[in-house]
Amino acid sequence: MILRIDRWGTELPPPSDPDPAGAQAVQELMGGRFGEMSTLMNYTFQSFNFRGRQKARPFYDLIANIAAEEFGHIELVAATINSMLTGASPIDDGRAPKASLSDVKGIGNPHHFLAGGQGALPQDSRGNPWTGDYVFSSGDLVEDLTHNFFLETGARNNKLKVYEMVDHPAARALTGYLLVRGGVHQVAYARALEWLTGANLSKMFPTPRIPTDKIPECQPHIQQGLHRKLYRFSPSDYQELIAVWNGPHPETGEPLEVEQGPPEGAPPVDLPPQPAVFAPDYAPEEIAQIAQRLRQQAGLPEEPTGEVAEGPSALGRMAGKLTP
Amino acid sequence: MILRIDRWGTELPPPSDPDPAGAQAVQELMGGRFGEMSTLMNYTFQSFNFRGRQKARPFYDLIANIAAEEFGHIELVAATINSMLTGASPIDDGRAPKASLSDVKGIGNPHHFLAGGQGALPQDSRGNPWTGDYVFSSGDLVEDLTHNFFLETGARNNKLKVYEMVDHPAARALTGYLLVRGGVHQVAYARALEWLTGANLSKMFPTPRIPTDKIPECQPHIQQGLHRKLYRFSPSDYQELIAVWNGPHPETGEPLEVEQGPPEGAPPVDLPPQPAVFAPDYAPEEIAQIAQRLRQQAGLPEEPTGEVAEGPSALGRMAGKLTP
Amino acid sequence: MILRIDRWGTELPPPSDPDPAGAQAVQELMGGRFGEMSTLMNYTFQSFNFRGRQKARPFYDLIANIAAEEFGHIELVAATINSMLTGASPIDDGRAPKASLSDVKGIGNPHHFLAGGQGALPQDSRGNPWTGDYVFSSGDLVEDLTHNFFLETGARNNKLKVYEMVDHPAARALTGYLLVRGGVHQVAYARALEWLTGANLSKMFPTPRIPTDKIPECQPHIQQGLHRKLYRFSPSDYQELIAVWNGPHPETGEPLEVEQGPPEGAPPVDLPPQPAVFAPDYAPEEIAQIAQRLRQQAGLPEEPTGEVAEGPSALGRMAGKLTP
Amino acid sequence: MILRIDRWGTELPPPSDPDPAGAQAVQELMGGRFGEMSTLMNYTFQSFNFRGRQKARPFYDLIANIAAEEFGHIELVAATINSMLTGASPIDDGRAPKASLSDVKGIGNPHHFLAGGQGALPQDSRGNPWTGDYVFSSGDLVEDLTHNFFLETGARNNKLKVYEMVDHPAARALTGYLLVRGGVHQVAYARALEWLTGANLSKMFPTPRIPTDKIPECQPHIQQGLHRKLYRFSPSDYQELIAVWNGPHPETGEPLEVEQGPPEGAPPVDLPPQPAVFAPDYAPEEIAQIAQRLRQQAGLPEEPTGEVAEGPSALGRMAGKLTP
Amino acid sequence: MILRIDRWGTELPPPSDPDPAGAQAVQELMGGRFGEMSTLMNYTFQSFNFRGRQKARPFYDLIANIAAEEFGHIELVAATINSMLTGASPIDDGRAPKASLSDVKGIGNPHHFLAGGQGALPQDSRGNPWTGDYVFSSGDLVEDLTHNFFLETGARNNKLKVYEMVDHPAARALTGYLLVRGGVHQVAYARALEWLTGANLSKMFPTPRIPTDKIPECQPHIQQGLHRKLYRFSPSDYQELIAVWNGPHPETGEPLEVEQGPPEGAPPVDLPPQPAVFAPDYAPEEIAQIAQRLRQQAGLPEEPTGEVAEGPSALGRMAGKLTP
Amino acid sequence: MILRIDRWGTELPPPSDPDPAGAQAVQELMGGRFGEMSTLMNYTFQSFNFRGRQKARPFYDLIANIAAEEFGHIELVAATINSMLTGASPIDDGRAPKASLSDVKGIGNPHHFLAGGQGALPQDSRGNPWTGDYVFSSGDLVEDLTHNFFLETGARNNKLKVYEMVDHPAARALTGYLLVRGGVHQVAYARALEWLTGANLSKMFPTPRIPTDKIPECQPHIQQGLHRKLYRFSPSDYQELIAVWNGPHPETGEPLEVEQGPPEGAPPVDLPPQPAVFAPDYAPEEIAQIAQRLRQQAGLPEEPTGEVAEGPSALGRMAGKLTP
Repeated sequence: MILRIDRWGTELPPPSDPDPAGAQAVQELMGGRFGEMSTLMNYTFQSFNFRGRQKARPFYDLIANIAAEEFGHIELVAATINSMLTGASPIDDGRAPKASLSDVKGIGNPHHFLAGGQGALPQDSRGNPWTGDYVFSSGDLVEDLTHNFFLETGARNNKLKVYEMVDHPAARALTGYLLVRGGVHQVAYARALEWLTGANLSKMFPTPRIPTDKIPECQPHIQQGLHRKLYRFSPSDYQELIAVWNGPHPETGEPLEVEQGPPEGAPPVDLPPQPAVFAPDYAPEEIAQIAQRLRQQAGLPEEPTGEVAEGPSALGRMAGKLTP
Repeated sequence: MILRIDRWGTELPPPSDPDPAGAQAVQELMGGRFGEMSTLMNYTFQSFNFRGRQKARPFYDLIANIAAEEFGHIELVAATINSMLTGASPIDDGRAPKASLSDVKGIGNPHHFLAGGQGALPQDSRGNPWTGDYVFSSGDLVEDLTHNFFLETGARNNKLKVYEMVDHPAARALTGYLLVRGGVHQVAYARALEWLTGANLSKMFPTPRIPTDKIPECQPHIQQGLHRKLYRFSPSDYQELIAVWNGPHPETGEPLEVEQGPPEGAPPVDLPPQPAVFAPDYAPEEIAQIAQRLRQQAGLPEEPTGEVAEGPSALGRMAGKLTP
Repeated sequence: MILRIDRWGTELPPPSDPDPAGAQAVQELMGGRFGEMSTLMNYTFQSFNFRGRQKARPFYDLIANIAAEEFGHIELVAATINSMLTGASPIDDGRAPKASLSDVKGIGNPHHFLAGGQGALPQDSRGNPWTGDYVFSSGDLVEDLTHNFFLETGARNNKLKVYEMVDHPAARALTGYLLVRGGVHQVAYARALEWLTGANLSKMFPTPRIPTDKIPECQPHIQQGLHRKLYRFSPSDYQELIAVWNGPHPETGEPLEVEQGPPEGAPPVDLPPQPAVFAPDYAPEEIAQIAQRLRQQAGLPEEPTGEVAEGPSALGRMAGKLTP
Repeated sequence: MILRIDRWGTELPPPSDPDPAGAQAVQELMGGRFGEMSTLMNYTFQSFNFRGRQKARPFYDLIANIAAEEFGHIELVAATINSMLTGASPIDDGRAPKASLSDVKGIGNPHHFLAGGQGALPQDSRGNPWTGDYVFSSGDLVEDLTHNFFLETGARNNKLKVYEMVDHPAARALTGYLLVRGGVHQVAYARALEWLTGANLSKMFPTPRIPTDKIPECQPHIQQGLHRKLYRFSPSDYQELIAVWNGPHPETGEPLEVEQGPPEGAPPVDLPPQPAVFAPDYAPEEIAQIAQRLRQQAGLPEEPTGEVAEGPSALGRMAGKLTP
Repeated sequence: MILRIDRWGTELPPPSDPDPAGAQAVQELMGGRFGEMSTLMNYTFQSFNFRGRQKARPFYDLIANIAAEEFGHIELVAATINSMLTGASPIDDGRAPKASLSDVKGIGNPHHFLAGGQGALPQDSRGNPWTGDYVFSSGDLVEDLTHNFFLETGARNNKLKVYEMVDHPAARALTGYLLVRGGVHQVAYARALEWLTGANLSKMFPTPRIPTDKIPECQPHIQQGLHRKLYRFSPSDYQELIAVWNGPHPETGEPLEVEQGPPEGAPPVDLPPQPAVFAPDYAPEEIAQIAQRLRQQAGLPEEPTGEVAEGPSALGRMAGKLTP
Repeated sequence: MILRIDRWGTELPPPSDPDPAGAQAVQELMGGRFGEMSTLMNYTFQSFNFRGRQKARPFYDLIANIAAEEFGHIELVAATINSMLTGASPIDDGRAPKASLSDVKGIGNPHHFLAGGQGALPQDSRGNPWTGDYVFSSGDLVEDLTHNFFLETGARNNKLKVYEMVDHPAARALTGYLLVRGGVHQVAYARALEWLTGANLSKMFPTPRIPTDKIPECQPHIQQGLHRKLYRFSPSDYQELIAVWNGPHPETGEPLEVEQGPPEGAPPVDLPPQPAVFAPDYAPEEIAQIAQRLRQQAGLPEEPTGEVAEGPSALGRMAGKLTP
């Protein structure tokens, strides 16, 4: 089972200029073979299917716990895509019969507008859906870990290339964070393989052969030590991470550490309605009125109980201009 | 973000006679269009993409929170499949070059053995992978809820049919539980639509038109009131479920209630190694030795820290006989 | 536009012993690359996309008109599959929680029961869905016709093999009819190519190299001359078929003839409910009562206005026994 | 069986400026999950697979008859796409080795030119093929109708968004018509569910929550009452539509009516050859000569017997300029 | 470019009892994610796309040359499947209208009979087609090699499991050979990574953790030293293999050696016609007569010039009995 | 088995201006239904599966031998795509964190950059992967040849259209060559069908109806007689091609001839590193140093043993400017 926390693992900038072509590229990090859907689901299935887990507990805990972090990563990729699509039709307006989507005809992934509500989808940069055949869960611990090390390597490759292709602030903030955190997972699987086989995979770092600290957007996270911390994403379980996650970081030599609990993170940005795509409705104020009435009936306080990032002024400044 | 709890949402029986053909059928509840991967990912993406969530908070909380429960459901489906595959090759033995898989040639989904380690996969009953194109996230709240009501209806259909097709104890325990819990979600989405549109969808229950309480395996859960409880799967968030989840249950008239927190659940069964498929290894005792050494180095207690269900005696009685 | 006639192109036997494994094989004729979905959709799209049709009218009429017949062929394949699946769960009974589908666990295409209501689906014999990528519509008349000749050749191959694999009476009646009618289309496209290129494709018949009249189930249709008749499936259009469809039949030398209108055909069999799969409902009598009330309100006659084949006695004799 | 009428359900404008990027978007209405291929094939298979149809005749007639109208809708979507692609290479010219397709490199769906002859394909806006897995045919009448209501809701969403994205005259004429006619089907399935369950689904209209009459291009059809008419697409069958299709329209309160027969429609536009893509040939005049000779041999009149829209002058004015 | 040699890389036994269910399983080694189509195409594309190859020649030569061997491996997998399917319909007989395929209804992959001529297809054990998305060609040498090492590990896993599942003599001969040769490739990629990164991947062998020499069918090949030989599959190129392929074998410590040229191999078995599936024709003797006439016209010798294995007597003993 | 020759079948120009949108289109010739992957794999599987080959030797030799040439064709398509992608990021530079891929955001197939290293992939122009379901291997010789003739016809269509769409020098050189060589295969299969059936398929040439010699880029190859030569791609096998490949060319009447051996071809171009996509590494000089050391250890000569085309000066002139 999981508990869900309505916060993001890191802060992302509020929406700025829309960038649907960039959002199309970022989809690779969501639904591509090496995207976060793949890391989430590979580790999740491997943890479900782990036989003899009690006798191999540290390895089980490692995989199961990293799976939990990956949920937060698909959340961040989605948030980034959503942010980049915001304003691609007029904010809070653009109701049909206006031709509010004519500017995005032929730009980016058409499903962002025709299927979705200017929102993220489980597809890759080509618009092809993520598929369960991306999951490798052989049940053989050494093979699964070998796969996971390779998967994280491919993921790091893709993040670096998306970084180079998309300079939208949200995409840069995303890739900066994911490079650091994915790097932790890459090290974790290499480390587990080292314990199991004796092969010194640490020597393969960094791969691709660019040190993470060369990426400016990684720096704030590195300075907070996030490149050497493995969070324990559970109220009480997965205590044995420390049996695997210890020793020196293969790139920096600093000590690897387990952090007991999730990152503090940041409240999510509440993105504005896009009535042209009926999100959350053609007339969002109707939804709001009904919601408010239901809240009152249920004795809830006047203000919504959930926390979101402050940001209306930033959104207010958006000119809604599309620069594909 | 999520926190993961290493417990199952409900108790499942320990492995008994293997049933790979049954496991193939149960896969529909995992990776089929209406399987738990679909409910999990539909609600997850809808929650990620929810625009103007602050003003529509009760509906956002509903979708985001049900998404969290669905993770526990893919966990249970996987556990069931894994249990049904256990013993299909000799328990704790069957190492190559023995022909330990010759009995399952032509039985069930060959990927359970050739790709996986007698374990669950994100595929449907045909062996076709789950695909991201099963996700509907239009951003239009009323449409998304209409979809979700339909999705849960299709899911209930599939659970009932799997119930009729597979009488393995694990499958029956699974479908009994999922029918009750999926029924809650079906009602929840109908209820949300009622609030938003005024259409009295409660009149459509039960659909398919068989009352849940006719299924014997649902009875224990109904008697505990699980058919009218919506769990809040979060330490602190999604407080506004009560604004939507209230009033009478459409079938029984009993009051709908929000439970503050997840179900107590049950510890997972630690399934035995299947060396014929190298799960967790061709020689599992090697893994165990390394794990034990690492645990000691890390100062962990002698016994594994994680809790699993008692069950060795039950497993010990397994004859490993395959009755497809 | 089309008008629909609620009759089958030929008579099919009433349900007899169920044969789900056979139904799985017959699906190749529905949703396989060379199945009737493919012939229907290839010719339909080619007719939609035909440029300069007015100056090439006889060829346009030929393709557009054969497309119309193919609709009747997917109807017949579906009817055959439905017939073969009838009785695989108890007729008019088998309501959950009975294990009414346990006999078909591991037999045939699981989607026939789990996704469908013991009914046909647009899938092939592997359970893979028909895909739009099976459509070839290049716009080049000679190429499209070359494709169509090849498509009909592959279709004839598949029909013959399904004939050899499945000896269920419904499957034999189906393949006997389709071999004759598909043979007409194969000749028609060869003939069109002959007119356009001068290549004497008639010399390639029969291909595969078994004369149609060797198949006993083809004989009744051959004796009625169906192997040399092209029906005109339109109240008033496609008058120019005769410009292409004339001359001697390549196998028999008999004259090719256009029949002005569709075949008389036969009324469809009204298949009995299968409550185990909720078709048409868990409690079909409820549907019947509502329908009857609506009919009365609308001033319709006491008896249903639609014609179906007589067959209750035959159905009554069905033991519902499954012989996979 | 079907009869085919060589007319379009409504009039579409003759080709004007080519718009391949718009044509790519319109493909969503053809081969997308909610496109017309999906409505056609869902209702067709549901009608094929309807068990106990005689006792539920009004519902069977409803589904079977709407299926028939949907054929006319894929025809109109194809015609629109074909029109929008016309002129994207030089009309009646552009023979290789000219670089006649260089202007469309990187514009729209490359298959419109490389695979097709500037013609429609069974693909969606991403260029992904329509798949049989889009068909839901559970056999359970209430579930199938629930699906169909949802399907039409998603289809209406997609039509509105394509309207907003593509302002080409052909696309606007298409979406204006389909919104009205699809709206009828959406009401029809809601109405059927109301009769069967008592749930007042009419309250959910319009969904998406924009009244159809806000769309200018819908107005001519609304003024002719097309939003409340269900055509009976059969010479003699499906007489029991009136048992379901009656009462007030959920949006306007006007009475719902059955029209006995198809709409008069309009003759199709005969689109000009595009020799750059060999449609209908590299040298279309060769095809025309052969056709004329065959027509004479067959004793057909001098002029083609099929009717097409007048339009050469309009086509003559086309500058063939591409404005992507 | 390639030159083709009409010999198999190793000897396979002549057809014995047919085993279509086994053939279905062996397809995983052809068209599965880790099948020989994948190894062939991954290395082929990596060699095509190798940038700066002149300066990295030994690595380029390694990948390009192993690609060449993989062609011989898909050939052997196909030969095995074909052999296992031989006799599943009557040898040299079974012409329609006989029900010659009724024994294989519901057995194995239906496409082996309905689509193919009792022959291999580029599909996996589920009947799902091989896809180009299985190819990883990042252009980054270290990543490509990491992938290749993982790919060969997964391939070894699959071969071992097919070995355990299918005890047909042809399947055993195949897997025995492929385990040895694939093992060479697994070592080769590990070795290349060792040179490039310094990580001692040799410590990971064997993976899966069963020594190859435990498999009896590997013994003949090991005794010939095939586990430590890398063949150079080129008349004159790929001379620099020796720069990477040297040093001790990670399991046995024996020296790795380059063999200049391909293995001698064995002539292919000429499998008998299966007229039930029209292979090579419904009436194979017609083909033979035409071929003989053409050979004479061309001045070719009386006997075919190509060499095939002696085997008629073995084939003559086949009872054609099917033991699924 | 195959031997590989490290030469291209024909000369291609060195990289000039990058053209990623053109490269996207050229992918149709690689991974499309009618691309070279399809011709390669269709003929390869047909040759593997050929039953009774000894008695039908000339036809077996024909198919097996053409398969061998097709390998050289996928090599040329890949080389063309690679050439067209060269320079799309800065040559020999562009290391992250530079935004070196921002110019190709939204241009062409994103997988060329995000998944690949500016290199070819087994995908079509839509970015959809090649699939094994494109392979037709029925085992029936006449049907397989009919398919092959149709496949080559579709391939010729696609080559001509890519020619018209992409005027990049590499694409023109490629299509010029492939049109001539694919034309040979189209004739070969027609010829084989003529021998087997007596149908004079030669009358269908050219199809599409544009003579190959109208394409200027075909002229050099026609002048060398390549349109009438069938190369024998084997050191010693496939001697019986001459029994089928003889007589007059259907378009020119010139005699068809078998060439004993492969074309001389040309050395491949060694494309420069693209460090932005880590091809062959983020720091290619590291790879070069290691390679050089290994070469020395192995006693290889100072200079690489493999031959590549001269071309540094040409590459040096590249401004790296992107003109999409």
